[in-house]
Amino acid sequence: MTAEPRETPDVVTLGETMVLLRAPHIGPLRHARTLDVATGGAESNLAIGITRLGGRAAWIGRVGDDEFGRLVLAVLGGEGLDTRAAVIDPEAPTGLMVKARRTSAATDVRYYRAGSAGSRLCPDDVDPALVRSARILHVTGITPALSPTARAAVRAAVAEANAAGVPVSLDLNYRRALWSAEDAAGELRALAGHADILFATEDEARLVLKAPDHTPLVDLARELTALGPAQVLLKRGERGAVAILDGRPHEVPPHRVHAVDPVGAGDAFAAGYLAELVRGGPVATRLATAAAAGAFAVTVPGDWEGLPRRDELRLLAQDDAVIR
Amino acid sequence: MTAEPRETPDVVTLGETMVLLRAPHIGPLRHARTLDVATGGAESNLAIGITRLGGRAAWIGRVGDDEFGRLVLAVLGGEGLDTRAAVIDPEAPTGLMVKARRTSAATDVRYYRAGSAGSRLCPDDVDPALVRSARILHVTGITPALSPTARAAVRAAVAEANAAGVPVSLDLNYRRALWSAEDAAGELRALAGHADILFATEDEARLVLKAPDHTPLVDLARELTALGPAQVLLKRGERGAVAILDGRPHEVPPHRVHAVDPVGAGDAFAAGYLAELVRGGPVATRLATAAAAGAFAVTVPGDWEGLPRRDELRLLAQDDAVIR
Amino acid sequence: MTAEPRETPDVVTLGETMVLLRAPHIGPLRHARTLDVATGGAESNLAIGITRLGGRAAWIGRVGDDEFGRLVLAVLGGEGLDTRAAVIDPEAPTGLMVKARRTSAATDVRYYRAGSAGSRLCPDDVDPALVRSARILHVTGITPALSPTARAAVRAAVAEANAAGVPVSLDLNYRRALWSAEDAAGELRALAGHADILFATEDEARLVLKAPDHTPLVDLARELTALGPAQVLLKRGERGAVAILDGRPHEVPPHRVHAVDPVGAGDAFAAGYLAELVRGGPVATRLATAAAAGAFAVTVPGDWEGLPRRDELRLLAQDDAVIR
Amino acid sequence: MTAEPRETPDVVTLGETMVLLRAPHIGPLRHARTLDVATGGAESNLAIGITRLGGRAAWIGRVGDDEFGRLVLAVLGGEGLDTRAAVIDPEAPTGLMVKARRTSAATDVRYYRAGSAGSRLCPDDVDPALVRSARILHVTGITPALSPTARAAVRAAVAEANAAGVPVSLDLNYRRALWSAEDAAGELRALAGHADILFATEDEARLVLKAPDHTPLVDLARELTALGPAQVLLKRGERGAVAILDGRPHEVPPHRVHAVDPVGAGDAFAAGYLAELVRGGPVATRLATAAAAGAFAVTVPGDWEGLPRRDELRLLAQDDAVIR
Amino acid sequence: MTAEPRETPDVVTLGETMVLLRAPHIGPLRHARTLDVATGGAESNLAIGITRLGGRAAWIGRVGDDEFGRLVLAVLGGEGLDTRAAVIDPEAPTGLMVKARRTSAATDVRYYRAGSAGSRLCPDDVDPALVRSARILHVTGITPALSPTARAAVRAAVAEANAAGVPVSLDLNYRRALWSAEDAAGELRALAGHADILFATEDEARLVLKAPDHTPLVDLARELTALGPAQVLLKRGERGAVAILDGRPHEVPPHRVHAVDPVGAGDAFAAGYLAELVRGGPVATRLATAAAAGAFAVTVPGDWEGLPRRDELRLLAQDDAVIR
Amino acid sequence: MTAEPRETPDVVTLGETMVLLRAPHIGPLRHARTLDVATGGAESNLAIGITRLGGRAAWIGRVGDDEFGRLVLAVLGGEGLDTRAAVIDPEAPTGLMVKARRTSAATDVRYYRAGSAGSRLCPDDVDPALVRSARILHVTGITPALSPTARAAVRAAVAEANAAGVPVSLDLNYRRALWSAEDAAGELRALAGHADILFATEDEARLVLKAPDHTPLVDLARELTALGPAQVLLKRGERGAVAILDGRPHEVPPHRVHAVDPVGAGDAFAAGYLAELVRGGPVATRLATAAAAGAFAVTVPGDWEGLPRRDELRLLAQDDAVIR
Repeated sequence: MTAEPRETPDVVTLGETMVLLRAPHIGPLRHARTLDVATGGAESNLAIGITRLGGRAAWIGRVGDDEFGRLVLAVLGGEGLDTRAAVIDPEAPTGLMVKARRTSAATDVRYYRAGSAGSRLCPDDVDPALVRSARILHVTGITPALSPTARAAVRAAVAEANAAGVPVSLDLNYRRALWSAEDAAGELRALAGHADILFATEDEARLVLKAPDHTPLVDLARELTALGPAQVLLKRGERGAVAILDGRPHEVPPHRVHAVDPVGAGDAFAAGYLAELVRGGPVATRLATAAAAGAFAVTVPGDWEGLPRRDELRLLAQDDAVIR
Repeated sequence: MTAEPRETPDVVTLGETMVLLRAPHIGPLRHARTLDVATGGAESNLAIGITRLGGRAAWIGRVGDDEFGRLVLAVLGGEGLDTRAAVIDPEAPTGLMVKARRTSAATDVRYYRAGSAGSRLCPDDVDPALVRSARILHVTGITPALSPTARAAVRAAVAEANAAGVPVSLDLNYRRALWSAEDAAGELRALAGHADILFATEDEARLVLKAPDHTPLVDLARELTALGPAQVLLKRGERGAVAILDGRPHEVPPHRVHAVDPVGAGDAFAAGYLAELVRGGPVATRLATAAAAGAFAVTVPGDWEGLPRRDELRLLAQDDAVIR
Repeated sequence: MTAEPRETPDVVTLGETMVLLRAPHIGPLRHARTLDVATGGAESNLAIGITRLGGRAAWIGRVGDDEFGRLVLAVLGGEGLDTRAAVIDPEAPTGLMVKARRTSAATDVRYYRAGSAGSRLCPDDVDPALVRSARILHVTGITPALSPTARAAVRAAVAEANAAGVPVSLDLNYRRALWSAEDAAGELRALAGHADILFATEDEARLVLKAPDHTPLVDLARELTALGPAQVLLKRGERGAVAILDGRPHEVPPHRVHAVDPVGAGDAFAAGYLAELVRGGPVATRLATAAAAGAFAVTVPGDWEGLPRRDELRLLAQDDAVIR
Repeated sequence: MTAEPRETPDVVTLGETMVLLRAPHIGPLRHARTLDVATGGAESNLAIGITRLGGRAAWIGRVGDDEFGRLVLAVLGGEGLDTRAAVIDPEAPTGLMVKARRTSAATDVRYYRAGSAGSRLCPDDVDPALVRSARILHVTGITPALSPTARAAVRAAVAEANAAGVPVSLDLNYRRALWSAEDAAGELRALAGHADILFATEDEARLVLKAPDHTPLVDLARELTALGPAQVLLKRGERGAVAILDGRPHEVPPHRVHAVDPVGAGDAFAAGYLAELVRGGPVATRLATAAAAGAFAVTVPGDWEGLPRRDELRLLAQDDAVIR
Repeated sequence: MTAEPRETPDVVTLGETMVLLRAPHIGPLRHARTLDVATGGAESNLAIGITRLGGRAAWIGRVGDDEFGRLVLAVLGGEGLDTRAAVIDPEAPTGLMVKARRTSAATDVRYYRAGSAGSRLCPDDVDPALVRSARILHVTGITPALSPTARAAVRAAVAEANAAGVPVSLDLNYRRALWSAEDAAGELRALAGHADILFATEDEARLVLKAPDHTPLVDLARELTALGPAQVLLKRGERGAVAILDGRPHEVPPHRVHAVDPVGAGDAFAAGYLAELVRGGPVATRLATAAAAGAFAVTVPGDWEGLPRRDELRLLAQDDAVIR
Repeated sequence: MTAEPRETPDVVTLGETMVLLRAPHIGPLRHARTLDVATGGAESNLAIGITRLGGRAAWIGRVGDDEFGRLVLAVLGGEGLDTRAAVIDPEAPTGLMVKARRTSAATDVRYYRAGSAGSRLCPDDVDPALVRSARILHVTGITPALSPTARAAVRAAVAEANAAGVPVSLDLNYRRALWSAEDAAGELRALAGHADILFATEDEARLVLKAPDHTPLVDLARELTALGPAQVLLKRGERGAVAILDGRPHEVPPHRVHAVDPVGAGDAFAAGYLAELVRGGPVATRLATAAAAGAFAVTVPGDWEGLPRRDELRLLAQDDAVIR
């Protein structure tokens, strides 16, 4: 068996991938005596998830011409992403995020990304041919919040995909630290209008729909389909997910796992869903893999490191297995 | 906003703070290949808790003229305690404690404190003006067990506070390794007679009261008030607490958290209570903050590092929150 | 009290002990940036368990003439095993195993033991006098799978014990990576016919008995006694154990502990049982210590490091104890 | 002996102190798997050096209202600095620097300080009474490069000191990453005109004087005195230093030590000089302590951690000493 | 600037890359409590060196279908190698090497590579088109020692290159642990006859030439050219190198650096030479970059991690530089 | 080849072995964030050195009935010492030492050994039969300083050896922290009178002889022989050693190695000498092995871990060797 040759991607995505500095133990960050060095970014997390499950994924983004930027590219390339469209920006540093678990149930993330290379993404970085070659274009609500040029890049990619008939997947991913709820609601609602597949949390759904707190989840999902996407999935963390897929409601029960890091679960869920979708998997398989990928992601302290390979999916069914 | 200027303390406390050497993983200590270096002491743990919650606290104690002593002072000073009354004793080394978790439910603590600088605390170290300036004097049952001079220092401080009308808070904190149950019972009972606020575990209450095993908790608390203190709080670890405050019984339900280190929970509870008391907080607030501080303390592997700042108290109410 | 002089062993065992390289955190092994260095082997794990509980144990096996071999001997000697019969083989390297937890419930073990020194064990390595001097000979189903000479060594030891009236304890310990189910079933069934005490998991029992899946556990145990052993114990991990001892059925309830590493629990269980047996303990004590030792083993990340000393057994009964 | 009470400072300084993330091993930063967390800033490094040598030092600066900011204040307070004038700025994050040794002789430092709290220092942060109370005001050429408000703060502090007759010490500390050589030359030359004591490297001296490369060192120093400062010290790293002090030239030979981290040596040198100056030490003592402090600083991987206490200065004279 | 697209390679190489487990501190390996996880292989070390200096390199080899194999591919891909021709072999594990520094001057390497996936390399793995597309084919004397099929693969690759007019570079790299001196001498001499560029140590030159100990170095080099290669370079570690290039002798002086790990220096030297050769660099540049790359390699504890990027070569000229 | 059976010892020694807590990096101890856990004691260091070089050694001493005590016994047993005569003292804790390197040339050691188990050694612990069975009894000047009973134990052992004709080796090992120069001089002079082999530093020689500073080294050695011992060796650290052996002077040149930890070099030197002496080695071999063992000891951060095995002695002659 030969290592996979590089071919046309199943999923193309664009966004910012940062170096992630992570406190190794629970507690106030200032007591951390070392920080673990990793990387993360919602879009590349998803792209790695696709790759682990046997798909091909390409990532578009910018890093600084510095060691942290080289780390990002080495990790993404090492995980099998197609990074040929990545840009090394000599004018700005690679962004950082600093993550600490304050208690076993509260995680804190701070960013050093103002003016970062990643936030300088612009429409020229988006290779139209690459977008057109994809089976799915995936974008998130983080990128448009990074800068006006990044927002224009997302819009350009979506427009290109819409024009070429490439389905657009959107994960709303609202980040409070980056923009106001009002700004976000407008932009994300507009983007949703151009998407075919939509991932959101309950809070994000309410934000975009300006829905009152008591609206039932399934109604929220259904209202989101009214914006355009035929496939809407509401992620509920430890409580699973609900979805409206081509008009029919679905409930996705959660896996019971020992969670150590909730960050990345949403990206994993979307990766699981899309990985099956590009293989032509039926709804049940898509949802099952989505839930499994989310469960894997939270058992490992890292945003994407725990994502499952296809042959590992079966491990979830077992109970204290020792394989030897 | 300017960093807090040093003013008169809300709480003054005295005791021994040691260097804490902690096995990083569960299991027999002799398999530990490194030990984490920290510090700890029931009284300074409490003082840090007060400071984190916005109060001012001063600590009286001795350390050796050695690097471990300088570490203790740097940590306490760095956490914002007023250590102007601390004494550097050139004649004796700073005490050590060695902590290991033998199983997930059994923690073992050994001391190298015989003849330590901290145990050489004496009445001359207690600045009467500092005690008189406090809104509360806090002492524990550990200090009188360290040495005759340390016992005299506690008595002197309490006498000074009593004379000046400064309320005395006492945490019984019986340490089997330091003295016999009989010796402890006598001294602690005497101290309780001079205290206004009393913290104890159920076992400590029985020790001091020589109460039979079947006495209900509330009755134990009530009997303790008969010794003098109008506020008696019985700490029950994972099961919360019960209290008699100015004659009325209260039940404090526990928080459900993933506990990794039970040491320091009692100090945190007392800190939460006293921090609100000095702000004039009502009973409900005092008990709520006490319980919350205890919950924070046990989620972090350290005796005091997990203590909450005031703006963090709200995190307990959330469930797998990611703040970003 | 003087450190135990070396005398005749309570238990003699033979097998391969390897260096164990262990990923420090949950997740795919390739993300591990360091590996912890330890040692492990089913037979020496058991021997250490015997020693911790106050018995004397001797270990027969081979290591390479290399630093990993010297590590194995230093660890076993340091834990108090009698290693005088160990052989240093200059012709082959010490075997390795690599252990990673893929999720909180799935552990993966890989071996570098093909052609290892340990697998070159041969009948000449088995000192008949040492076997005859033992109160119990313990063997496992791993050793016969290592090589033809290792298989012959086990057979020779068992024959010697049978001849000398030394009871033989056998833990089936089927390892899929080493031989086929069919090969194993034949050899293990034959060995069981020469054993007095038999430890097995439910799956191993079915393998040897070629029993259908629906056979009740107690019936499996009883069928195993029909092969020869008067004492048969079926280990069920988190669910405890069942046993037929001299014709009578027993159920062993599990301890509720926070398990972090299931590897070694079976060895611990057998160690607890045999440690009491050689002291002449009654059935109830044997089973209680077996269950307790298994519980201790799983709370610590290591195959044997968590095994209890006799005075630690009482810790299991406590709940969040701090001993100080 | 009682821990030092807080009194009027010997040295007041102002600047930015950042969290320092440091690769633990030599090599390209992207291969670092963890980063050590420390703190650093030229001015606070110097202030710690003063404190270690028995002086009193106050630090003025801003940190963010975040855990990194709390770390900076805890470290500086723990090291005994007077941080009462420090400002916690809720509008901006604490700055970061990332340090790696690319080879044993080349160290790389990157900053995440654009828009940081520390760079928002402004004249209002400079308490005139604190400046006036000092025996020396120390500033560096870094602070004016951070922002217009920071530059104004330095000018204000210097003006206040000049007016009050407090001697001004200036370390040119040119940072290429922060401003152009031309901008720096103008501002630093102007500042030098208001300084009484001037520290510089040879390159910095040439920058400010626009001196040709062949100008001898002593002439450079003498030309700098012509700008105003009566005491000029040119630091030469491993080669010692030259100085013109009140018109007379001095040569300072270096100590032979095993250097592991050159960063901080200049701050240490200045701290040693000023610490003796405020004690009224003669020239020879000032220069000896300056050289010794520099030697101590480079033997430890940290910007200030290796700074000597007064009783440690004698260790330099020894050779492979073991004190026990 | 866009990340380099994958094009035809400058250098194609084939061999085994293993996981490297490295003791973090000097001393007997058995005292190591953790091992650092890295990767290494003479051929891929060279390929990474080419890539760092701006060239393109492709690597042919086998890894196991296991996490260690995935690590090797992730690292090589992450460093920018073209690994499209790599084979994942489901039948055998990825090889391991274990490295320890016994003293500051003696390094010990042990292998677990018998039967490894890498040693199962075979002629079918060598894509003739890839070899023909290269500007240089690089092979080492390690690969033919791994197995008969691996030897056949090297011969096939060399024959293909010879036929296509692609220059062949050979590093003799004799490994005592893999084959006898006699076997090696024959095979390596034969390979040298097909090579255009030859790298060797003095010992290896003597081995192949069966030259007496007193033969001067230059004569050894000249005798090697008589076997075929027009470019012969004798590497002398800390003492530099000598070369005969197109008939003319050259002496390469060493760089003075603080060496912490000599392993990989030879691969770095060859990488530096070939990287310049493929750019058409003159002899002086080739030798200078070769020496510089070797110097970089030894300052970092890793077989290839310290290799320089082109813009870092200038750092060697500096002395205790801090870049900030 | 079978692991060495336990037989009569070549060397018997007695003393205190402590747990050694060691700062992992150079700098003030209070900045250490973890401490490495090891063990050490002059006498057991020597005994390990004997064992590594192929001899047999027995150690007499006390440890506490605690995990640190069990660690000491596990390490000594694991290194092959005969610890059958070791005593576990339930009344006192195992002693600690804390070691930090303040600079690359100054090491600081602090003890927590007052009242330790090790210092409670007493004459009853000394098994006369064991002493009589030895080929050499080795004692140091540390043990008599620990307590009156320890002093009596040393005297008893020496008397027993003298009576039985077992040669006595004494290493003066003066420890300033334990007793005054005057007390030491008397006791050590008396002990020297009963010794056959004497190891000392120059300072220790002067202390015992009350010799003026200008006495040449060889004269000091000769004066020491006048006290009794026919073999006197003066250790000079990096400068080698001088000796008077049976009346003839010898000069031992040092090895040039990169020293990272001078502690333990003296014990290693003595071990090398005695290991050859018990094998009947000639003077040149004894001195060569002594110097080599000392050189090995200082290249590793640990008091004894770097001690050489016999087959490693040849590594010193090599230069940057890679063995593979």
